[in-house]
Amino acid sequence: MTTSVIILAAGKGTRMRSQLPKVLQPLAGRPLLGHVIETAKQLNAEHIITIYGHGGEQVQQHFNHEHIQWVEQAEQLGTGHAVQMTLPVLPQDGISLILSGDVPCITPTTLQKLLDASRETGIGLVTLTLDDATGYGRIVRKDGQIQAIVEHKDANQQQHQIREINTGIYCVSNAKLHQWLPQLTNNNAQGEYYLTDIVAMALADGLEVTSVEPEMAFEVEGVNDRIQLAALERQFQNFQARKLMQQGVHLIDPSRFDLRGKLKVGQDVRIDINVIIEGDCEFGDSVEIGAGCVIKNTKIAAGTKVQPYSIFDQAIVGEDTQIGPFARLRPGAKLANEVHIGNFVEVKNSSIGLGSKANHFTYLGDAEIGENSNIGAGTITCNYDGANKFKTIIGDAAFIGSNSSLVAPVRIGHGATVGAGSVITRDVEDHNLAFERSKQIVKENYQRPQKLKK
Amino acid sequence: MTTSVIILAAGKGTRMRSQLPKVLQPLAGRPLLGHVIETAKQLNAEHIITIYGHGGEQVQQHFNHEHIQWVEQAEQLGTGHAVQMTLPVLPQDGISLILSGDVPCITPTTLQKLLDASRETGIGLVTLTLDDATGYGRIVRKDGQIQAIVEHKDANQQQHQIREINTGIYCVSNAKLHQWLPQLTNNNAQGEYYLTDIVAMALADGLEVTSVEPEMAFEVEGVNDRIQLAALERQFQNFQARKLMQQGVHLIDPSRFDLRGKLKVGQDVRIDINVIIEGDCEFGDSVEIGAGCVIKNTKIAAGTKVQPYSIFDQAIVGEDTQIGPFARLRPGAKLANEVHIGNFVEVKNSSIGLGSKANHFTYLGDAEIGENSNIGAGTITCNYDGANKFKTIIGDAAFIGSNSSLVAPVRIGHGATVGAGSVITRDVEDHNLAFERSKQIVKENYQRPQKLKK
Amino acid sequence: MTTSVIILAAGKGTRMRSQLPKVLQPLAGRPLLGHVIETAKQLNAEHIITIYGHGGEQVQQHFNHEHIQWVEQAEQLGTGHAVQMTLPVLPQDGISLILSGDVPCITPTTLQKLLDASRETGIGLVTLTLDDATGYGRIVRKDGQIQAIVEHKDANQQQHQIREINTGIYCVSNAKLHQWLPQLTNNNAQGEYYLTDIVAMALADGLEVTSVEPEMAFEVEGVNDRIQLAALERQFQNFQARKLMQQGVHLIDPSRFDLRGKLKVGQDVRIDINVIIEGDCEFGDSVEIGAGCVIKNTKIAAGTKVQPYSIFDQAIVGEDTQIGPFARLRPGAKLANEVHIGNFVEVKNSSIGLGSKANHFTYLGDAEIGENSNIGAGTITCNYDGANKFKTIIGDAAFIGSNSSLVAPVRIGHGATVGAGSVITRDVEDHNLAFERSKQIVKENYQRPQKLKK
Repeated sequence: MTTSVIILAAGKGTRMRSQLPKVLQPLAGRPLLGHVIETAKQLNAEHIITIYGHGGEQVQQHFNHEHIQWVEQAEQLGTGHAVQMTLPVLPQDGISLILSGDVPCITPTTLQKLLDASRETGIGLVTLTLDDATGYGRIVRKDGQIQAIVEHKDANQQQHQIREINTGIYCVSNAKLHQWLPQLTNNNAQGEYYLTDIVAMALADGLEVTSVEPEMAFEVEGVNDRIQLAALERQFQNFQARKLMQQGVHLIDPSRFDLRGKLKVGQDVRIDINVIIEGDCEFGDSVEIGAGCVIKNTKIAAGTKVQPYSIFDQAIVGEDTQIGPFARLRPGAKLANEVHIGNFVEVKNSSIGLGSKANHFTYLGDAEIGENSNIGAGTITCNYDGANKFKTIIGDAAFIGSNSSLVAPVRIGHGATVGAGSVITRDVEDHNLAFERSKQIVKENYQRPQKLKK
Repeated sequence: MTTSVIILAAGKGTRMRSQLPKVLQPLAGRPLLGHVIETAKQLNAEHIITIYGHGGEQVQQHFNHEHIQWVEQAEQLGTGHAVQMTLPVLPQDGISLILSGDVPCITPTTLQKLLDASRETGIGLVTLTLDDATGYGRIVRKDGQIQAIVEHKDANQQQHQIREINTGIYCVSNAKLHQWLPQLTNNNAQGEYYLTDIVAMALADGLEVTSVEPEMAFEVEGVNDRIQLAALERQFQNFQARKLMQQGVHLIDPSRFDLRGKLKVGQDVRIDINVIIEGDCEFGDSVEIGAGCVIKNTKIAAGTKVQPYSIFDQAIVGEDTQIGPFARLRPGAKLANEVHIGNFVEVKNSSIGLGSKANHFTYLGDAEIGENSNIGAGTITCNYDGANKFKTIIGDAAFIGSNSSLVAPVRIGHGATVGAGSVITRDVEDHNLAFERSKQIVKENYQRPQKLKK
Repeated sequence: MTTSVIILAAGKGTRMRSQLPKVLQPLAGRPLLGHVIETAKQLNAEHIITIYGHGGEQVQQHFNHEHIQWVEQAEQLGTGHAVQMTLPVLPQDGISLILSGDVPCITPTTLQKLLDASRETGIGLVTLTLDDATGYGRIVRKDGQIQAIVEHKDANQQQHQIREINTGIYCVSNAKLHQWLPQLTNNNAQGEYYLTDIVAMALADGLEVTSVEPEMAFEVEGVNDRIQLAALERQFQNFQARKLMQQGVHLIDPSRFDLRGKLKVGQDVRIDINVIIEGDCEFGDSVEIGAGCVIKNTKIAAGTKVQPYSIFDQAIVGEDTQIGPFARLRPGAKLANEVHIGNFVEVKNSSIGLGSKANHFTYLGDAEIGENSNIGAGTITCNYDGANKFKTIIGDAAFIGSNSSLVAPVRIGHGATVGAGSVITRDVEDHNLAFERSKQIVKENYQRPQKLKK
């Protein structure tokens, strides 16, 4: 039986006060709708049908790499009306999960339970039991069976005591959707077509309406404003942090950890406070990340220690390297094992060989550096002539003196030495020393400039 | 009817264990008393009368730019005694709010409600309903009317159940203050003159004592030690964060955001974790501030993206600029639109024109840079000769090679080029190339220094 | 009467998913077991007997500088079995505290109370009253006297209501331990020897079993997985933060403060958000530490202001210095009073005299700098020739021009001046000016490189 996922994503989200459609607002670095789509994919849904409205073009463009059927809801006439829009493309058989693009944290686990519970009866929903259910639609049961969903304003005093609520997440057989949705009416105060009414239709048809509860309450929380978004961000981050800790990651403070993507870890990874992980990252055994680092789309091999306030983006880092503090690895930085990158060092589109070191104030751009070379403090690869970029090649066991400028394209040979403060414009052959320097001039008893009178 | 604000600010605050008088301790970057004065000003109070005691000179000096009448309480004989000190300067008519210098978060909204509620009756107070009121003075009511304020130790068992308490914030007609305050006595265990006793006098006079409750409980919290100060700091920060989120700011984590001043924002501003805003700042539409930035007294125009760990002070930043990470804009930094300032770059008292770039390791001090110029990595404006500071002028479309030293005063012309590693001491005319460099010397088969035996 | 401390430290801690034995996992920068040993030392325990098992060699090696008697528990047959292992080395007289290596936060205060309470009766234990005691062993009392400890699964309905639990921390006279421990049996479902059974023996012997409760619940919390470790870390950090605030430290946000060692403070120390303190540190009066600083084993004298994101390790900092932001003091950095160290400056194994300044982009390694000298931006001490390190000596009132390279060993005299961009290889005598520079060459109407066609 094929599974479809229908996602309501037409809302404007006025309370976000944003130019961005609500479902594109990011949670943990991914749009709200992206979370729901990812969940649909993890469930191996054959069809993902998304109902768009406000900002629809922007929304579709953001997900144009995904296999999604887009359905427009031109007028916002209620949730039932929204799902009606999918009927022309909804298969006649199979079953559909109906999700909201602004309820991003629902897990595949909960939805799989819902699917399993709903297949036989043809309709099921996710409910939640709250301490205080004021304002929500209540689940009225008799002998454990769902009898009705009663909106808060329509509930009697006894029903107000009910703590089980409707979350708005449904699983319905497509046949029933094709049967029920055309029957929806808008004979209500708001003049809207409510999806909830299909529950009454199911009960009228004598069907049993099944239900499941999510493992964690935040799975069914929706986002309507920035305050809710921020609150859900922390709940989702806390959930991610707990999963990593269960895998053995030593998070010094899970409430000061942000994962905006995926992190694959080895054993005994230690992550200090306020680290941000973005995109796809992978840390080997015993990797240690110091406070305040921002690591994006980077793979770090075992045994590497990163000191505080280092920023990596699209880098590949070998084993047992030492990096930071205040180091920056930009896209294309490739560090072999046992490399040392020290404070205030920037590496871009450069490879650095086994055991080589650049410990202070260095810019390595478009460079290839061999093994066991030492790049002195203040060295700069002059890779840009104002129009083009060129490569700097440095061999093995080279020694670049401090404050040197290596004007690319240039090659410094194996075992070669560059004297401090040199501007190197021509290649240095293996084992040669090169330097560019004038004679040291002395003026005795020099009169230092005096403070000018103003 | 004129409004006066009387502020009790004479306490020493022994439990703060500080040299600083308690009312000068900062909350969100402003002294406790400063918050109360600011609130008084927002209420358009005609008179602000502050009662000082410990550290009075320091307190007065801190606020010497404000229109405040200072009244000394030489001996600390109770709150009633403190307010008695104001009688010589207190107008005969009008109404007064009586506030505490160590209760900084009371809002104008609550006080306006108190003023409105008190004008007719001549006396009102702010009360608060707590879950556990143990220790506080209870508000005893009959048929909704305040009958008495009973201190915890004097309360009977029934009164101990009362959860509404006196917060010590009053609004009283000046006529009544002039009538009641001289009648206060210190016939009590502590031998102090209690301001609370005026409530009994009002009731004895047959007056109705009105009351209002603050919207938020933290408005009436006082600060007596560092632990309370830190707790109130977080409550106030959370309050500020919520206001910004309601305006549409995307705060990634409101519990890791510190606003110590005022922030004016456009639409879709995004602020990552651990950002500190100080003084008066303004961010245009779609401005993004990366993690850990510290932004003080700075205006940033629309579309600008600031990467993590950038520090700005008294800077003006144009539209669509890209800054950081690890950039520092010091006072007088003025960036035009589309400027790029990269990592480990410091800008002080310098203007940078449209589209110009300084992407790495650069110090720009006392410089004027035109449009579309490129400042190479490691460039330093040598603006200081040990006694005086001089300007560096760089034209449009100039190219400064890496590791250059520009010895001010010096001018690099439009379209001019400076070769890498040059020390430029004389002006470079438009479109010229200047460089300062020796011949590259080579020593073949150079013997590198060996490890010395020790 | 001698006091022994017996520490159970044989557990593997499988749920930590770590190569490191559980008792070596760090809390606030110190291994769990290290906290317990430190507490034992603060109680002046004559004997510290630690029972090791998994990872025993690693554990012993970590504490090989401590006076500890190590006892192996080869098989893990229960807590009673573990303590049995100590009998061969346990003194016949005196009294013993029995602690767990994974319950790190028990305070000397609580244990001293337990010792005092237990000396007369010969047996006492630490109990805790919980809101929900489900799962724990209950303390059954009659007329206030302990009658039994009943495990949750063995408790009747009435006993399930008991909220006082056994924490597993005991104090027992050694004579009784020698008497009771050999009588323990493993006739129970798990086939383990339970230490708890000695309580029944004591009661059977007609002894009174005394008890104390800890001041703070987290004192008796154990660590079994990363989630518990992280939670306990925050509780311990909060406890430390409160102690510092009680001493008068202005912590801007105690939930964003990490002390991993000891901090001694003067008056009016202010610490901004996300500061990490490691090892032994001392801050004098009015020291201010900016956001995000990491300070390790460093002493900072009164009046010094450290700006954000500065990192110190084994440094000594004088009075009224100004440091940062983005400054790094590495081991051996010694700053006299009134020194200025600015942004992107690294100091290693160097002394800097009264009033001297290095405000931007400077590496000072193995240097001795006198008083009132000015080190220009971009200055680098070239202290390493690829094999050896050498010293740079700079006198008083020297002026080092920007972008200079000082090739050690080298001495710059008192009042000497170095021109910008110089590579200085020979000593500069007092009051002389030295520079190394070529003539500035100009090429008119220079044709800038053009974008290459690809």
